[in-house]
Amino acid sequence: MREDGRENEQIRRVKFTKGFTKHAPGSVLAEFGDTKVIVCASVENVKPKWMPKDEVSGWISAEYSLLPSSTNVRCQRERTKLSGRTQEIQRLIGRSIRACVDLEKLGERTITIDADVIQADGGTRVASICGAYVALTELVNKMMKSGELTENPIIEPIAAISVGIKNGEVMADLCYSEDSTTDVDANIVMTQSGKIIEFQATAEGKSFSHDELNKMYELAQDAIQKIIKLY
Amino acid sequence: MREDGRENEQIRRVKFTKGFTKHAPGSVLAEFGDTKVIVCASVENVKPKWMPKDEVSGWISAEYSLLPSSTNVRCQRERTKLSGRTQEIQRLIGRSIRACVDLEKLGERTITIDADVIQADGGTRVASICGAYVALTELVNKMMKSGELTENPIIEPIAAISVGIKNGEVMADLCYSEDSTTDVDANIVMTQSGKIIEFQATAEGKSFSHDELNKMYELAQDAIQKIIKLY
Amino acid sequence: MREDGRENEQIRRVKFTKGFTKHAPGSVLAEFGDTKVIVCASVENVKPKWMPKDEVSGWISAEYSLLPSSTNVRCQRERTKLSGRTQEIQRLIGRSIRACVDLEKLGERTITIDADVIQADGGTRVASICGAYVALTELVNKMMKSGELTENPIIEPIAAISVGIKNGEVMADLCYSEDSTTDVDANIVMTQSGKIIEFQATAEGKSFSHDELNKMYELAQDAIQKIIKLY
Amino acid sequence: MREDGRENEQIRRVKFTKGFTKHAPGSVLAEFGDTKVIVCASVENVKPKWMPKDEVSGWISAEYSLLPSSTNVRCQRERTKLSGRTQEIQRLIGRSIRACVDLEKLGERTITIDADVIQADGGTRVASICGAYVALTELVNKMMKSGELTENPIIEPIAAISVGIKNGEVMADLCYSEDSTTDVDANIVMTQSGKIIEFQATAEGKSFSHDELNKMYELAQDAIQKIIKLY
Amino acid sequence: MREDGRENEQIRRVKFTKGFTKHAPGSVLAEFGDTKVIVCASVENVKPKWMPKDEVSGWISAEYSLLPSSTNVRCQRERTKLSGRTQEIQRLIGRSIRACVDLEKLGERTITIDADVIQADGGTRVASICGAYVALTELVNKMMKSGELTENPIIEPIAAISVGIKNGEVMADLCYSEDSTTDVDANIVMTQSGKIIEFQATAEGKSFSHDELNKMYELAQDAIQKIIKLY
Amino acid sequence: MREDGRENEQIRRVKFTKGFTKHAPGSVLAEFGDTKVIVCASVENVKPKWMPKDEVSGWISAEYSLLPSSTNVRCQRERTKLSGRTQEIQRLIGRSIRACVDLEKLGERTITIDADVIQADGGTRVASICGAYVALTELVNKMMKSGELTENPIIEPIAAISVGIKNGEVMADLCYSEDSTTDVDANIVMTQSGKIIEFQATAEGKSFSHDELNKMYELAQDAIQKIIKLY
Repeated sequence: MREDGRENEQIRRVKFTKGFTKHAPGSVLAEFGDTKVIVCASVENVKPKWMPKDEVSGWISAEYSLLPSSTNVRCQRERTKLSGRTQEIQRLIGRSIRACVDLEKLGERTITIDADVIQADGGTRVASICGAYVALTELVNKMMKSGELTENPIIEPIAAISVGIKNGEVMADLCYSEDSTTDVDANIVMTQSGKIIEFQATAEGKSFSHDELNKMYELAQDAIQKIIKLY
Repeated sequence: MREDGRENEQIRRVKFTKGFTKHAPGSVLAEFGDTKVIVCASVENVKPKWMPKDEVSGWISAEYSLLPSSTNVRCQRERTKLSGRTQEIQRLIGRSIRACVDLEKLGERTITIDADVIQADGGTRVASICGAYVALTELVNKMMKSGELTENPIIEPIAAISVGIKNGEVMADLCYSEDSTTDVDANIVMTQSGKIIEFQATAEGKSFSHDELNKMYELAQDAIQKIIKLY
Repeated sequence: MREDGRENEQIRRVKFTKGFTKHAPGSVLAEFGDTKVIVCASVENVKPKWMPKDEVSGWISAEYSLLPSSTNVRCQRERTKLSGRTQEIQRLIGRSIRACVDLEKLGERTITIDADVIQADGGTRVASICGAYVALTELVNKMMKSGELTENPIIEPIAAISVGIKNGEVMADLCYSEDSTTDVDANIVMTQSGKIIEFQATAEGKSFSHDELNKMYELAQDAIQKIIKLY
Repeated sequence: MREDGRENEQIRRVKFTKGFTKHAPGSVLAEFGDTKVIVCASVENVKPKWMPKDEVSGWISAEYSLLPSSTNVRCQRERTKLSGRTQEIQRLIGRSIRACVDLEKLGERTITIDADVIQADGGTRVASICGAYVALTELVNKMMKSGELTENPIIEPIAAISVGIKNGEVMADLCYSEDSTTDVDANIVMTQSGKIIEFQATAEGKSFSHDELNKMYELAQDAIQKIIKLY
Repeated sequence: MREDGRENEQIRRVKFTKGFTKHAPGSVLAEFGDTKVIVCASVENVKPKWMPKDEVSGWISAEYSLLPSSTNVRCQRERTKLSGRTQEIQRLIGRSIRACVDLEKLGERTITIDADVIQADGGTRVASICGAYVALTELVNKMMKSGELTENPIIEPIAAISVGIKNGEVMADLCYSEDSTTDVDANIVMTQSGKIIEFQATAEGKSFSHDELNKMYELAQDAIQKIIKLY
Repeated sequence: MREDGRENEQIRRVKFTKGFTKHAPGSVLAEFGDTKVIVCASVENVKPKWMPKDEVSGWISAEYSLLPSSTNVRCQRERTKLSGRTQEIQRLIGRSIRACVDLEKLGERTITIDADVIQADGGTRVASICGAYVALTELVNKMMKSGELTENPIIEPIAAISVGIKNGEVMADLCYSEDSTTDVDANIVMTQSGKIIEFQATAEGKSFSHDELNKMYELAQDAIQKIIKLY
């Protein structure tokens, strides 16, 4: 049994509080146990500058940040440059959320996802991806109601989960104290229909086998179905 | 009467939720109406690097940030350099909070105040200063309990309030829509005993008279007494 | 009596040498005792980029810098980022000078005030503001003569002065050695007609009373009248 | 059949030219078809600054860069900040190479891997990882000969390969024109004994199934065995 | 005799391998003894942004970089700002190469020279200038063939050489160990017809006489003739 | 005859006002015609950080800056990074002034030269070098008087001059309007005894001959003698 009494395949209490702040058109507080992330979606009616002039399409990008007070020991604000970790997470959130949207149906718009971690206890990137999906649906619903969008650009719900291997045990949804001592750390993003969008598994200490790759897949698939039901 | 029905001297609903996040030893959600700021205090047992080697004293500095989703229209993260506005607010929070602490009694420690605005509706800097005082007392209380501090370094409670002049009317605690159209904008920090720590009044549109200076003082003194009662 | 023999309300020798350098259309050496600042005003016939396209108006911004050799102990050049102090001063100069100009009458122009301190002995920001007013009038006079401007956009002369409290004494125009040991430090900007544009009072060591607030106002008003006569 | 006539499981001509430059103790030109990377390993006899004082261990980090002339269309030098892509690749190379080394046996040393791409045609990150392994063995061999190291810290050879899915076909070692049009793009790092160190699969266009995950594993395992034979 | 057996006026083995990499239209490996520089020329069909709108002309600029592994002891990558040395060298390469081109004949194009040192043993800047000339001719020849250019904009071949004074001896083409101990260090750029484009002589330790200035000129002229024959 | 009526070999009115500002121990206003530079020398009793621990020596470095209002058209402040031009000039001033000082006799000290141009009309770098020599002698004289130095570390006076070629005429001390239209631009630093420290000649438009190199030397030598007499 795990340190907080969970079974290997069991995820923590997951909760999404929609409309958490008042200004952003999509806003949610995403909680995975003690991990709490404010995720907001906002939109501008222009396409990004780098997009070729003749391309009629939208874009979604993401920004991720830890509040200094969110971590165990106070962390530094990133005010002069971004760490590699932050950039990796931002790129992962952006890629994942773009994978469930038909960008052409968005039209010439740019959506920005802001994921701000106010309390961190492991799994902030997967909470951010799930929150991003929820904030995006809030935003899209408003745009459908107002008539700005006439066709829903969201293809299928997605969710993300962390999976790890520790002393030969494969377990889902690691909290911080587990995460910092695992041998293998994976983040997996999947669709409701069970297809994979991202599979990132990293051996921090001990390499892993083909069998373990498959076990991680199975736990992730199961957890992701549970999370999508909570949206 | 004002747009939200308040009298000129009336402040919005002010609320302090202590222990808002779990990692920082001092943590509070400070609310002035729809303005919401997470303010945390954390401590390191070293004095700042710039302090002369033979000086036995502590220090308190502050960092302030707007979440991009906190404002009416999404604002940019400050990831490569800080705006003048952010730096001014940080310096004001730090100076104000240092004014109510006997830094020598702190010993060779550095306290950092983090004020992160999650929803902005005017008065974020005064909410941050009040929240900073509350977070600091949380932190100091823990340090007194644990025996790290044997003497309380806090001299006297302080609070801050915004005051403005609009069409000749002097009014307290401006919300965003008032703030953006005032002729004169002031931020005042005072102690419980009625002494002034900061008096910053700026004519945005129309200069003001000596009489108006005094009226602003009076409204501020009254508001600050009310806020301190809510700590 | 003060260390240099002045009475509390007495200002230092103040002098403005117009046309100090040859390239900038407005150029003055502003001296307050041993404090010497080269202040220049230059103009471009475009409005700032951030101004909405349909707004027909001008703008004035300010840059402030200390020569490394201007201070008691050599100070660092700000070559990678600006300190909070520099940004605060720049914003103060810009705000003050805009307060005495009808920006619409300027037309679609951007005026830049450059205040470069070549010798510092306290009060560099107030010398910069006074110098900025003088350099601006030089520039405006040239533009009136050349016909670029047909109506004078300057509303009323302004000036600035520093005031401080030390051992209970309120005194005007602090030199560096006074400034570094005061309990309260204030910078006040007023118009010739006695209206207030900025009132910034900060308790560095000891908080101050309502009475002292009023005494600071009185000394400032008196000093500002004297300075304006020297323009 | 693929555009350059290869079978799906077939890798390009892979070649390692050891001792490619004269100054770095480990230096190799790694070629995967037209992709050419100079990879060097150098060592300093200090541990990194961030490592706790009481930890006796070494460290290996990596830097990756594209020469501007290496790409199809000239790319910008990263001279003010690093892109997210560069940081991700650097972190991947470092993590992969640390996974095959017993860092304690290294002693208090810091090894830097420099991977500089002089010609890019897809797969620069996997060529960099393979080159890093070869440069590291060159360096370690010299340190063993000179007596600086008495025990070889390298645990087991590793290699890396890219795998992709395009129109339902899973294929190994993508060249640039393939890489830019695949639906799924994966980079896999494995040990000689067939254990996984990194498995990063990303759906660029179309999500993928559990079956395809397994096919990618198989192609990677096969390719990695072939590459290790060429070291 | 010099440490590697050369006479004072003798240059090292100089070699230019054209077409060294496949993507850039002009690409050469320039070798002066153990100094090896990849120099590429690429072109964009726009003039630089700073050029006035009504000017019909091309431009050539240069970027120079040392691979970290190129130097005796590993050097730092310049990833946040450029050193003064790098900027000086870039400006020198750009100025020198522009001096042999009729920029108006280029048309509204911008050519970028990239000089990336893969192995350094003294004289990297002169190798870069010579390589730049060769890469430029490769590029221009392709543009003439394709019809993009109808008239050759290159005026006359140029080359560069380093010259130094050590213990009163004037010598050409210094290798690193000589360069780091000379009293005077000069870099000279000349045309095939013997005219001077740049003459930069610096006394590192001991100042030099008018006679020595002339001897440096003579050695340079002779060396430059030899190098141009190798193009 | 030249545009301001001077002969080709004639320099402008050159003047050095010592003790121009009060804080820096060495301070001078250096004027070459309408070019005016405040040059100060200050000293710290530490050697630079990069100097090896066992080296007992001093160091001199220089910083150069144009006031925005110093140029014909207002120039930008360098507040985030330095231009190549500024870095080249700073390095030239530092190298030149170090060439006339016995750094070992300085002891473990760091001297900083600050050259701030308040009015620019050509030749700012040579005015800065001459001013640097004068400010340094002021500083050294004070240190000799106070007993901080017991032996004068200055070897010999130096000076600098600009020389140019225009329409085949070689002329000394170019003012801005000449400088911006010359074919060849040279800056030459020499000692009182006629030895060369720096010889930097650049063909901006038309390359130059060996004869012209020698004529530039002659004009420079003559001008430098005249300037040194004015110290």
